Amino acid sequence: MTIPAFHKQKSPLIIAMAVAGLGASGLVSAQAPVDVEERLRELEERIIAAEQRARAAERRAEVAEQQAEERLSEESLNARLTKVERQASGEEGFSFNAYARSGLLIGQDGKSTEGGPYLTPAGSVGGAVGRLGNEPDTYAEAILNYRMRFDNGAKAHYRTMLADGVRTSNDWTAEESNLNVRQVYVELSDLPSFTGAFEDAAIWAGKRFDRDNFDIHWLDSDVVFLSGTGAGIYDMQLADDWTSNLSLYGRSFSDFRVSRENPNDTGSTDNLILTTNNYFGGWQWMVSGMSAADNDERVNDDWADEQAADTGFHTMLAYHGDSFFGLAGGSFKAALLHGRGLGAETKSIGSDGRLIDDAVSTRLAAYGTTHVTPTWRVAPAILAETSEDRYRHGDTYDWATLNVRLANELTENFEMQYEASYQWMDLEPQGFEDRNAVEGSYTKLTVAPTFKPEVGGFWQRPEIRVFASWSDWDEDLDGFSEDDALGTDGFTGNEWSFGVQAETWF
Amino acid sequence: MTIPAFHKQKSPLIIAMAVAGLGASGLVSAQAPVDVEERLRELEERIIAAEQRARAAERRAEVAEQQAEERLSEESLNARLTKVERQASGEEGFSFNAYARSGLLIGQDGKSTEGGPYLTPAGSVGGAVGRLGNEPDTYAEAILNYRMRFDNGAKAHYRTMLADGVRTSNDWTAEESNLNVRQVYVELSDLPSFTGAFEDAAIWAGKRFDRDNFDIHWLDSDVVFLSGTGAGIYDMQLADDWTSNLSLYGRSFSDFRVSRENPNDTGSTDNLILTTNNYFGGWQWMVSGMSAADNDERVNDDWADEQAADTGFHTMLAYHGDSFFGLAGGSFKAALLHGRGLGAETKSIGSDGRLIDDAVSTRLAAYGTTHVTPTWRVAPAILAETSEDRYRHGDTYDWATLNVRLANELTENFEMQYEASYQWMDLEPQGFEDRNAVEGSYTKLTVAPTFKPEVGGFWQRPEIRVFASWSDWDEDLDGFSEDDALGTDGFTGNEWSFGVQAETWF
Amino acid sequence: MTIPAFHKQKSPLIIAMAVAGLGASGLVSAQAPVDVEERLRELEERIIAAEQRARAAERRAEVAEQQAEERLSEESLNARLTKVERQASGEEGFSFNAYARSGLLIGQDGKSTEGGPYLTPAGSVGGAVGRLGNEPDTYAEAILNYRMRFDNGAKAHYRTMLADGVRTSNDWTAEESNLNVRQVYVELSDLPSFTGAFEDAAIWAGKRFDRDNFDIHWLDSDVVFLSGTGAGIYDMQLADDWTSNLSLYGRSFSDFRVSRENPNDTGSTDNLILTTNNYFGGWQWMVSGMSAADNDERVNDDWADEQAADTGFHTMLAYHGDSFFGLAGGSFKAALLHGRGLGAETKSIGSDGRLIDDAVSTRLAAYGTTHVTPTWRVAPAILAETSEDRYRHGDTYDWATLNVRLANELTENFEMQYEASYQWMDLEPQGFEDRNAVEGSYTKLTVAPTFKPEVGGFWQRPEIRVFASWSDWDEDLDGFSEDDALGTDGFTGNEWSFGVQAETWF
Repeated sequence: MTIPAFHKQKSPLIIAMAVAGLGASGLVSAQAPVDVEERLRELEERIIAAEQRARAAERRAEVAEQQAEERLSEESLNARLTKVERQASGEEGFSFNAYARSGLLIGQDGKSTEGGPYLTPAGSVGGAVGRLGNEPDTYAEAILNYRMRFDNGAKAHYRTMLADGVRTSNDWTAEESNLNVRQVYVELSDLPSFTGAFEDAAIWAGKRFDRDNFDIHWLDSDVVFLSGTGAGIYDMQLADDWTSNLSLYGRSFSDFRVSRENPNDTGSTDNLILTTNNYFGGWQWMVSGMSAADNDERVNDDWADEQAADTGFHTMLAYHGDSFFGLAGGSFKAALLHGRGLGAETKSIGSDGRLIDDAVSTRLAAYGTTHVTPTWRVAPAILAETSEDRYRHGDTYDWATLNVRLANELTENFEMQYEASYQWMDLEPQGFEDRNAVEGSYTKLTVAPTFKPEVGGFWQRPEIRVFASWSDWDEDLDGFSEDDALGTDGFTGNEWSFGVQAETWF
Repeated sequence: MTIPAFHKQKSPLIIAMAVAGLGASGLVSAQAPVDVEERLRELEERIIAAEQRARAAERRAEVAEQQAEERLSEESLNARLTKVERQASGEEGFSFNAYARSGLLIGQDGKSTEGGPYLTPAGSVGGAVGRLGNEPDTYAEAILNYRMRFDNGAKAHYRTMLADGVRTSNDWTAEESNLNVRQVYVELSDLPSFTGAFEDAAIWAGKRFDRDNFDIHWLDSDVVFLSGTGAGIYDMQLADDWTSNLSLYGRSFSDFRVSRENPNDTGSTDNLILTTNNYFGGWQWMVSGMSAADNDERVNDDWADEQAADTGFHTMLAYHGDSFFGLAGGSFKAALLHGRGLGAETKSIGSDGRLIDDAVSTRLAAYGTTHVTPTWRVAPAILAETSEDRYRHGDTYDWATLNVRLANELTENFEMQYEASYQWMDLEPQGFEDRNAVEGSYTKLTVAPTFKPEVGGFWQRPEIRVFASWSDWDEDLDGFSEDDALGTDGFTGNEWSFGVQAETWF
Repeated sequence: MTIPAFHKQKSPLIIAMAVAGLGASGLVSAQAPVDVEERLRELEERIIAAEQRARAAERRAEVAEQQAEERLSEESLNARLTKVERQASGEEGFSFNAYARSGLLIGQDGKSTEGGPYLTPAGSVGGAVGRLGNEPDTYAEAILNYRMRFDNGAKAHYRTMLADGVRTSNDWTAEESNLNVRQVYVELSDLPSFTGAFEDAAIWAGKRFDRDNFDIHWLDSDVVFLSGTGAGIYDMQLADDWTSNLSLYGRSFSDFRVSRENPNDTGSTDNLILTTNNYFGGWQWMVSGMSAADNDERVNDDWADEQAADTGFHTMLAYHGDSFFGLAGGSFKAALLHGRGLGAETKSIGSDGRLIDDAVSTRLAAYGTTHVTPTWRVAPAILAETSEDRYRHGDTYDWATLNVRLANELTENFEMQYEASYQWMDLEPQGFEDRNAVEGSYTKLTVAPTFKPEVGGFWQRPEIRVFASWSDWDEDLDGFSEDDALGTDGFTGNEWSFGVQAETWF
């Protein structure tokens, strides 16, 4: 746009000169009107000029307004920016998530030592101990997401996850690699044709970790870990305070022996798990039934005449609290799980095909987090199970883990972390897989000076930690199995280990 | 632009003083003139004030204009936004593409059942049947792209593809993993030194799927699938209506036996494939020649004295139509392929080193898509081949697949899909790889209620489908081979399968 | 806001007509005041209108200013854009890096031929030759980064790297796959609690390539390649001109034999490497000590009674120059390395557990780059080592590689590259791993027409190259080992190879 051409108007100088000239000439009353006329005309001209100028200014202000308006309007700059923001945040298009831990776990002899939260005899049936200063592996998950929005408002989420876990410290691990694809699924939500109870529902199919799995982080143990290939629906609103999920998961039981005489006779089947999760306020009730056709043909072991189960049942009642057991600020979760037959693997539902028909397990899981002072946080946890007739009639597996993680924030970037873990177990495998009956306890104490970008909570990551752990256990536990950590290669108790580790997720 | 220089004018004060001086001189014509003077002065002052205000408004409007102008100018906000838009869209920097399918395929016995479009005897030589409700695997491709723009206008595209396919339903598949890198290549385009016929040409090198491969989606069969490691040039403009590609692809023939007496004597060679694609309007003419030095030393099988070929020839004439065979709106593609020697594998060009010198194959491939009503879509397809002297002199492999996919859009997010597949085959392998001569047909019918974010076409993804399939075949086909699906473990016809599956690409 | 209503005012035309009418009527002094009153009132009204208009314009200009100001202010549009720019650039959130090469290397016989910079006998102890036209593999690294910024200013960087290298030209390489995770680490920087010497320090833990590794690109050889799992700190400012790093790396020595009689008796240990890098201007001084408990129990080979080392020492003095050895513009790097015991592997520090206690190695590495004319670039390099008592007492490994890469830029997108490589070696393994003493030299000459998006330097990528190489060597070298390239399958000298290759990094 151009500015109105002021130069075409009489210059103020000429006007002023005219005015001055007028003042200089003597005036008679006859001429007075003429002079007034003159001056009125002059004033009029100036008014017109001022008017024009004001109009021009107005027009320019209007244009500037429109420019700011238009270019920044929903339809343009702002809209474009909003779109790239959605893409940058991963709300639309690609996004990356990860979980990773990597570090050294070195024993007193200066070599890699045994470790992992499942290193005790109870670990063979899910009895985890505290993980801090106890992890010997580099484990990484790379999650690639792609989210789409459709013109009709529908959304789609595609997720694939690569995962690898190795114990070597070397960089090139082609020989040891366990790299594999753990998740590949599609989830659809906001579907316009879904109304009523289904209005907020999402449907999915593919291979996945169930969305509603949850864990006790410090034991590296999920409370339930349901995964496999299937399909389902989340978030059906069955009543005002009742939302419900329904899913079918398949898992593969592959290449098990079906003849004791001929080890080459193998069978395979699928464990099909129908599961529903129901939420009423903080309460969660999960019920699962499962069936694995012909799994009862499986030869469970070489010395006992046990028939594997081909069906199972599993249920969990859980509470998700937004306080520290009602006692203080913080959070807690508590769950009671019960399973029978193929459902007697209470955590990794439907994943253990060796369970027999009469297998029965009951598990308790609970943890809480709270600040006891502004700089001290505490997180106690318990995980305990009693299981019998599990792989052989008459076997019993009873164990309980108590764990507490403490953190003391010392600076913005540094905290001392402490973990104490105690596990008691009484296992009578009745000879299953050459395992011997043991009873005893395991204790681990860890101190871990920890660096993090910003202290402030148990879930703040990444963390870089240095640690020293001491662990000890009853000698009896060394005799459980020749394949597990305890009792092998001089790893027989009163053990120190040292290390460094990074852990992150996002 | 500059603001007119108001300050060069006489100051309003001087003007006002002159005017006041004038007013001080006595005037005749009663006092009226005095009042008039007074009021003129007042008016004048107010005019001056209005002028100043207008000027001020003008200046501010100008500033606002400039701000909007500058900050949003090409050089700044808009340019920055345009750049991040290019990055968010993947036009520049990183982008992610994927193909994935995952689901359950369960037979009448409640276990995973046989499946896959290549499950029939004809499948061993490329005879695919319909894939809907017939896929037992989790297959995922993750494509990582990185695109660069250079100051001189040149563009570069780096692509790498990870792919994995497994049949287990479990999440942790380290044992079964087939994860591998299928593509790693660089493509350069818009090179300023490329002019004339090469102006729009792109050059590439590395390992890749040829850009111009195309498929019959419903059969999970490419019409041509050329891939390997090499280099080439795309989109040379040889004449107004003639564009042409030229590429060299290598493929590895590894560790084949070269002595019937000593199974440990093995050889390896490379099949070097020189290929050109030529486009004239909708027509495509592809010609490929190939040579694999010393492949004729290969011992093709143990019982026949056949010499593998060391050269081959392949050609394809195809038409890419933008209507349903000229009959209705939609699309169609039709191709006639012919190959000899190593070129007698008509789809996966140059990938089969067992072909003998006299091998000859001719294949027809065609499909179309159209809407028959606004809510019904149909896609018929045909794939048929006759091949002889393929692996042994005197062998013949004749087969034809007819397939039709139907979809009935019922809501914005739901459609019923149907697929009927019929395949006839007459295979006489002359004992090659212990295979027996068979003749007969295979039929599969599938119904698949399908959810998608937005219905509207055969290529709209993702889809989440539930399905039931029925398949049957002539008993004769069970006897073809002990290694294929038909006839094994009671999979002998009149089979039902059920399942769920997600499929997506982007 | 609304525009002041111009239409409510008297139109200028009406005013002008009134003025004209005034001029036309004769005026008497008595009536003059009346008319003047009238007109003054009119003028007054118009002035008021002009004033209002000017005020309105002022207000609108102000609003427009504010809009431009606010919407574009640091707090809003600009800030949002800055954030997505950080995400698009990878400064925050996800980013992707890669190194990749892929191509064909075909010998005179039309088959894949031997290649790789480590193909000579000296290659077995790190003696690389020129890589141009000499690489037979598809090697790709995919690096996934995620960077976080915290409110307190701290930054975190998570990196994971997938890598794969295969020699097959086929696309589906599940059988040959070496895909593995080479890096998984977290690095924290800008930590507010880090002050003084640590103010600019960064700490890390996990599995990684050390940040300060550097290479001679044309030989595909790092000068130092330190990698493994551990933790460390970078960039401590110990004095004004002294920055220092300190790291602990672990590497795994797995499954080595500890008994000559019983091959199944194996041991494993960790080589723990404590390393410090110190920078003084262009100078770098690196010192590393290492210890691998019980590695001295390793049976190094079957015929000699050598004891592997369990400690080692390594040091490097390097200079990083910003000119061509002070002679011309360009760059150069020079390093002298010395190692003993487990430190006698001078490049891949601490990775070779077979070294014996008395092993000693001294290596020289240097290269430079410069333009000799505006279109000719040259990069000479030298890598040489003398090593003795390496795996057996009395063994000696002396070798030296001279290499020169030349490039002649012919257009914006095309340059001719040339490489000449000469290597002399005198190796006396004393029978270690069935290797024989050899002395002689190897020569390779390569010409490679090269396309790139923009020529301009040795580090500009991607490149797509076509090449022909000629290599020859003393016949003596063929006898070194039955497991290496030289002397096998007729690969005995005077060899031509041809190929195409893409290479990129970003």
